[in-house]
Amino acid sequence: MNVTVRGKARHYRTVTFDSRNNHVLLIEQRLLPHEFKIVSTKTFRETAAAIRDMIVRGAGAIGATAAFGLAQGARAFRGGDLQKFSRHVAAVYETLKEARPTAVDPVNAMNDMRQAMAKGKTVRERQSIGLAAAEEFANEDARHCKQIGEHGAKLIRNGMKVLTHCNAGWLAFVDVGSATAPIYAAQAAGRKFHVFCDETRPRSQGATLTAWELAQQGVSHQIIADNAAGHLMQRGEIDLVIVGSDRTLGRTGEVANKTGTYTKAVLAKRHNIPFYVAIPLSTIDWKLKSGFDIPIEERHEHEVLGAWGIVCPPSGVRSPKTGKRAYVRVANSTSGARNPGFDVTPAELITGIITPVGIFKPRELWRCRRKLGFDS
Amino acid sequence: MNVTVRGKARHYRTVTFDSRNNHVLLIEQRLLPHEFKIVSTKTFRETAAAIRDMIVRGAGAIGATAAFGLAQGARAFRGGDLQKFSRHVAAVYETLKEARPTAVDPVNAMNDMRQAMAKGKTVRERQSIGLAAAEEFANEDARHCKQIGEHGAKLIRNGMKVLTHCNAGWLAFVDVGSATAPIYAAQAAGRKFHVFCDETRPRSQGATLTAWELAQQGVSHQIIADNAAGHLMQRGEIDLVIVGSDRTLGRTGEVANKTGTYTKAVLAKRHNIPFYVAIPLSTIDWKLKSGFDIPIEERHEHEVLGAWGIVCPPSGVRSPKTGKRAYVRVANSTSGARNPGFDVTPAELITGIITPVGIFKPRELWRCRRKLGFDS
Repeated sequence: MNVTVRGKARHYRTVTFDSRNNHVLLIEQRLLPHEFKIVSTKTFRETAAAIRDMIVRGAGAIGATAAFGLAQGARAFRGGDLQKFSRHVAAVYETLKEARPTAVDPVNAMNDMRQAMAKGKTVRERQSIGLAAAEEFANEDARHCKQIGEHGAKLIRNGMKVLTHCNAGWLAFVDVGSATAPIYAAQAAGRKFHVFCDETRPRSQGATLTAWELAQQGVSHQIIADNAAGHLMQRGEIDLVIVGSDRTLGRTGEVANKTGTYTKAVLAKRHNIPFYVAIPLSTIDWKLKSGFDIPIEERHEHEVLGAWGIVCPPSGVRSPKTGKRAYVRVANSTSGARNPGFDVTPAELITGIITPVGIFKPRELWRCRRKLGFDS
Repeated sequence: MNVTVRGKARHYRTVTFDSRNNHVLLIEQRLLPHEFKIVSTKTFRETAAAIRDMIVRGAGAIGATAAFGLAQGARAFRGGDLQKFSRHVAAVYETLKEARPTAVDPVNAMNDMRQAMAKGKTVRERQSIGLAAAEEFANEDARHCKQIGEHGAKLIRNGMKVLTHCNAGWLAFVDVGSATAPIYAAQAAGRKFHVFCDETRPRSQGATLTAWELAQQGVSHQIIADNAAGHLMQRGEIDLVIVGSDRTLGRTGEVANKTGTYTKAVLAKRHNIPFYVAIPLSTIDWKLKSGFDIPIEERHEHEVLGAWGIVCPPSGVRSPKTGKRAYVRVANSTSGARNPGFDVTPAELITGIITPVGIFKPRELWRCRRKLGFDS
């Protein structure tokens, strides 16, 4: 999507590859929204570190980063010995996989790449097949997000007010995003609407990432406290909710997503507001039989006990563009916190699931599993 | 309630009066939870400034502060001329009233005091009646909170997990608090239970004030993001919700309270979890006929765009006890925010209203209005 740097809007992807220098180029997401910076990783080990250290985050984005990292590692191999090359690629694969062991996309992307590379007859050939496959993974990720946008855009009509939660925007993918895709497509179609971004405590991805994205794209928006959506719905100020998903159960239509998603779905149901979940097909889990079996990660309590931001002078809360980044502790020094990272929204609260191949009722997923890429 | 200063627990009220020096003594709430400090105001003008600048906040607490401020101003009068004295008291009254023009408690307290003072035959007599009336207002506030606790304590059984929102604790009153009163009473009765404090963005009164109170009192508790309650309810980890109220409509049973209260009530209803509102009688509004007529204050957007706390080194997030207090901007420098300060919870979502004279169904209030102090 577009980012304006020194007054000029330019198109960026979250992850790209510089084949001349064999570098992976990444938006340094930890600095957003206060600073926009592209970092380049020079070796596959640096690429793995970038995944581990959260320079890049989000399913599609880390999938593409791992894919480019594998291509990068493969291309760094010198010599023509196929056996040594295979051992080298296996080691690169393990390093990248271990950078975020619970993520599914990196593993899927790299497995596909290795299958494709095996068809090459020489090291050189396999190296070039690997890079082409990584490029294709990244392009496909962006294409799928665009398709989500095409299907979802028709939900957003002129004058609507749309609520989002967390960040399932282009920063979490290679481009376009999932929950934001219908927003960007409706904007491209010339429609006028307004987006409320839940700040999404405790990590505030809505306030930091989604709001920044929408500001860069020129979409009308405001940040709200997670507490405020209920009041806005009650007063008729929200017409549609679109969120992303970390894992969607193909058998039940349940959706695991950032903490607070379930709350918004309960509120939307009470107020008869359509609640949609936008997902790439890779996040559908066809195995699990109940949302209660999804492990809910308990994250570090310091996320709840404080906040990260840039220090502002008391009088100029919004004025400075940059400043010293700091963590402030909001709570007292002895109280602890509970911090479940995700929650599970049942199918009955979900109006529809927006996918690259169309919009489905959550309980239709299993019946339509062939169309949705379930291949066993 | 108790506060531990340098290892020693001592009983404090949020507002007290030093009659020898004619000073009002206040807990400087803006420094909490990072620093505990008592400030003394030397003149009624300083007392008014303390109300205006939010050194003291919360209905009961500012009511008592204004009452003591009026006594303080009256006692500073020199001479015996009753007419001059009355003009002086009227000016003191106006100054204190204007410090927080929308608040009801200061006006009610001061009107009662002036009526009582009018019975005095000399300036000296009126001055002493004024102070006695202010002391009685403060004592009554604390007594009413204790009564709320006695009625509400039976709702809290051993092993329960209780959710609270915002701060309706002793810091908002003279002592004990409203929503916290049943908690302190159940603790005094020897019951074991656990409290989850919603952090209550954007001003984080749950994380800063309620959690600090509970820590001082030794009540088992944890802070949670406002987003997390839905998940905890879904997993059976919350048994009871108790909140306070800024205004309760006597005719409909609707409750206006800090933004996010309504959301918690909707979630509690879905999970069949009892949802109680604890109130002093002074916050019942017998006039308004609909919650939609309650004006919802739209507060400054910087509350949503950032957070206040003390700056911590990245490695020692919880370790330092004190530090530099700062505002950090979490969002980017261009996005704006919506910030409704309150929301309205309908009667159908409220299990009961805990008052100093007993627990009522929200729709019983009007029928029981005589018992609840409605005198017309």
